[in-house]
Amino acid sequence: MTSLSRRRLLAGASAAAVSLSVPISARAAAPLAGRQAPAFYRYKVGDYECTSVSDGARTYAIFDNFVRNVSKDQAIAAAEAAYFPKGMVTVPFNPQLINTGSKLVLIDAGIGPGIGPTVGHLATNLAAAGVDPKAIDVVVLSHLHIDHANGIRAADGSLAFPNAEIKVPTLDWAFWMSEENAAKAESDTILKGFFAAARRAFAGIESKVTHYSWGQEVAPGITALDTPGHTPGHTSFAVASGNARLLIQSDITNIPQFFLRNPDWHCYYDIDPQRAQATRHKFYDMAAAEKAMVIGYHFPFPAAGYVEKDGNGYRLVPVVWQTTL
Amino acid sequence: MTSLSRRRLLAGASAAAVSLSVPISARAAAPLAGRQAPAFYRYKVGDYECTSVSDGARTYAIFDNFVRNVSKDQAIAAAEAAYFPKGMVTVPFNPQLINTGSKLVLIDAGIGPGIGPTVGHLATNLAAAGVDPKAIDVVVLSHLHIDHANGIRAADGSLAFPNAEIKVPTLDWAFWMSEENAAKAESDTILKGFFAAARRAFAGIESKVTHYSWGQEVAPGITALDTPGHTPGHTSFAVASGNARLLIQSDITNIPQFFLRNPDWHCYYDIDPQRAQATRHKFYDMAAAEKAMVIGYHFPFPAAGYVEKDGNGYRLVPVVWQTTL
Repeated sequence: MTSLSRRRLLAGASAAAVSLSVPISARAAAPLAGRQAPAFYRYKVGDYECTSVSDGARTYAIFDNFVRNVSKDQAIAAAEAAYFPKGMVTVPFNPQLINTGSKLVLIDAGIGPGIGPTVGHLATNLAAAGVDPKAIDVVVLSHLHIDHANGIRAADGSLAFPNAEIKVPTLDWAFWMSEENAAKAESDTILKGFFAAARRAFAGIESKVTHYSWGQEVAPGITALDTPGHTPGHTSFAVASGNARLLIQSDITNIPQFFLRNPDWHCYYDIDPQRAQATRHKFYDMAAAEKAMVIGYHFPFPAAGYVEKDGNGYRLVPVVWQTTL
Repeated sequence: MTSLSRRRLLAGASAAAVSLSVPISARAAAPLAGRQAPAFYRYKVGDYECTSVSDGARTYAIFDNFVRNVSKDQAIAAAEAAYFPKGMVTVPFNPQLINTGSKLVLIDAGIGPGIGPTVGHLATNLAAAGVDPKAIDVVVLSHLHIDHANGIRAADGSLAFPNAEIKVPTLDWAFWMSEENAAKAESDTILKGFFAAARRAFAGIESKVTHYSWGQEVAPGITALDTPGHTPGHTSFAVASGNARLLIQSDITNIPQFFLRNPDWHCYYDIDPQRAQATRHKFYDMAAAEKAMVIGYHFPFPAAGYVEKDGNGYRLVPVVWQTTL
């Protein structure tokens, strides 16, 4: 007998008695919440307290050259195997916050507000995590694509992290700020948009920006690793505290379901696809050998996992969500 | 040049100018948060709004018979392959909340408060999700093990969900409340504890409890599926709304890294291991054929994924976390 039929029966027999003794039927139905949980997740690297903070995700149709060197049908099949909505991909954005004890460091800044309803949520999720944007000391950008860099600006155009030094890779700055390169991109709508966005993000705040090179510490215990290809100055990071070591890959791959699984596939967004491909193999061979935890900007939230060799490609083993820190 | 060395240089040259123009060095270091994010996650099944709500997780050493029919070394190797702490397993607990629009239904209730620091967090996570325990209409228990049933009690022993009808599987009630069965369990410390816990949880509140059978709807659109073996009355659930269908497996497997990957392994906690093994194959073959989303009580939070055949076993493809509902 179901709950409903039992209650109907009781109500028929003695409505007054039911209303006194069983308050359930008198209560209104609970409203739907209608919104997702905030997306932040903490993990430790030695003494460092890290927080994966989502900026949101975009779901869009696979366009013709999303994977440049395989057929669209192959890409669509890979999307189906990943249980994406039919013919589409979901690309999440996951900045990382690292509290070294002395410095509060944000690696990548999200796409910023006003771009679309499903992205630009970094500020909201930082607030849910109890983090004051004014407390962030350093924002380190892995490269200058809009989805990593544009979030240095708040909705009103002011600095989203007003007390932070902004650190950018020297080679990416040179590439995106070059008039010559920008002129060459005029014929490619998407690339042209990337140039415009990078210039807009930094216009007038050049004095806040410092440049870093590979091999340097961008903050205590956080070293810039040379992983070019996606962009000329694209950078990953090794985070070390005590004996613990974390690898933040940035955009070594876009979505892992495609490009970690198939490291020889060329993503539309890779500026130098051959070099990006070589970087993928080198980086993932290192990560697999070390059994290091890897953070991927475009991995599914909480964006952390382990990389293993699997045939000609790799597989990602997501971390088990730790319910206590 | 790193930020630190740049600042030292500036400070050496002109300490006064720095303190006026660069407020960073004057601010205190941001304190560590010291705690994990709340763990709840929303997903839709047709018109139903569902929330995976963590009760926490336990991490413990693999004991001799944790897997009854393989060597401890094999179990330890499986734990290492899953990146668990050395020689240990992490077993999460994930009740599900389903708002059908007319009823607010909780499937399994967690282990309850006072058992240990890493578990009993259902109430806290429900509060983070904005859910009033008084608004829950029905608590459906998949079986009467302590980690599913004991959470019907608050810390002071009162009902954690005071307005909810509590629904239990007829066969499990008969099994755990039998004096004869309890007497037979005296020699097995763990099993004896399970009997004691089940009886303690329901003592004095029998009038709140109704019994359900397999094939029945336990709430609108939520059907009880016969999946015995783990316990005699162990139940899974199919949740249907419109054309959408979700499978809540309950404890078809304990941790998927062991028993979904190796469905012929016998978990210590399975009362009838042979029957549990047959149930695993039957259920996962169905889930794989349907490509249905599966919720597992002991899957890593948010406890949702897709099951695929893989050799003699299965693999779990975790869902991509959706940052908007």
